[in-house]
Amino acid sequence: MEKKLVPVGLSNKHAHLSQEHIEILFGDGYELTVMKDLSQPGQFAANEKIEIVGPKGKQTVRILGPARNVSQIEVAKTDAFALGVKAPVRNSGDLSGTPGVTLVGPAGSVEISEGVIVAARHIHMHTSDAERFGVEDKALVDVKVTGERALIFSNVLVRVNKSYALDMHIDLDEGNAAGLKNGDLVQVL
Amino acid sequence: MEKKLVPVGLSNKHAHLSQEHIEILFGDGYELTVMKDLSQPGQFAANEKIEIVGPKGKQTVRILGPARNVSQIEVAKTDAFALGVKAPVRNSGDLSGTPGVTLVGPAGSVEISEGVIVAARHIHMHTSDAERFGVEDKALVDVKVTGERALIFSNVLVRVNKSYALDMHIDLDEGNAAGLKNGDLVQVL
Repeated sequence: MEKKLVPVGLSNKHAHLSQEHIEILFGDGYELTVMKDLSQPGQFAANEKIEIVGPKGKQTVRILGPARNVSQIEVAKTDAFALGVKAPVRNSGDLSGTPGVTLVGPAGSVEISEGVIVAARHIHMHTSDAERFGVEDKALVDVKVTGERALIFSNVLVRVNKSYALDMHIDLDEGNAAGLKNGDLVQVL
Repeated sequence: MEKKLVPVGLSNKHAHLSQEHIEILFGDGYELTVMKDLSQPGQFAANEKIEIVGPKGKQTVRILGPARNVSQIEVAKTDAFALGVKAPVRNSGDLSGTPGVTLVGPAGSVEISEGVIVAARHIHMHTSDAERFGVEDKALVDVKVTGERALIFSNVLVRVNKSYALDMHIDLDEGNAAGLKNGDLVQVL
């Protein structure tokens, strides 16, 4: 049988911001500018960065666009320790009860009361990939990594949409632990 | 069948130093002092720390004692990036061709030409544990982690010795990626 291979995308810490927050941080009517398109269609790394300030430290993070309805800051556990926030592992958008942080931009700052998460690893699949792999939206799959830090990620969430491109998103802690670089191929079991 | 459970020990970045290097860094005749005993009999976290300086940055690391024949610096991939050294994943003592770094202490500094590694995850077992688990020294086993970042570490090296205590050593990248804290139990499959 054909192996079900998926390229890996490593997510460094980053911010998704609401348009309201973008304007507080960068000025009235400000719009994000595109530095680089990302693997998911329509998504981009912006030129703009902000500072996030926690009880124990601050870090500079890039903004990913476009603007979202709700601001969400994604960090690795390593970053969360440095900031001094207890960010839980959550799926994107599941922000209830997560810690807040202060966002600082060139034109102003805003304190968010929640929104800092460690993003749960997940696989984006186009509808055609999901058919080929025989999985459905919200399936949980095991994913095999080979190499010197070989491991199997258990219970990886699959998200299927006709606007998605095939890509497994993990954070830098996970990438380091598994010895993975951007574009490396992993296998859905 | 009884589950083969092993407690986890998370290794932060640290230095093992030769007595020669200890004396260069801390002064003639200097001996490390014990801050805390570690899980492996005879091993201890010292009160003494040093700075390690790479091409891109420097970090403060604790020394683990007692002195060894050869100095060895163990960092996570995250630390290696920050230092600017390409530290490979290696077993302890396998230092050939690994990068060097400058060690700085209160009494002096020394440049080592090799010795910086990302320690390969491994399990220490007392001889009696190995008998109970049905494994031998240098066996490679798979280790299951449960919880919100469940995964299976593949090909984990087992070291058996009557001077060892049962303990799985992983670094902070691996601990963060697997959602593990010190003392959490993992299962040898």
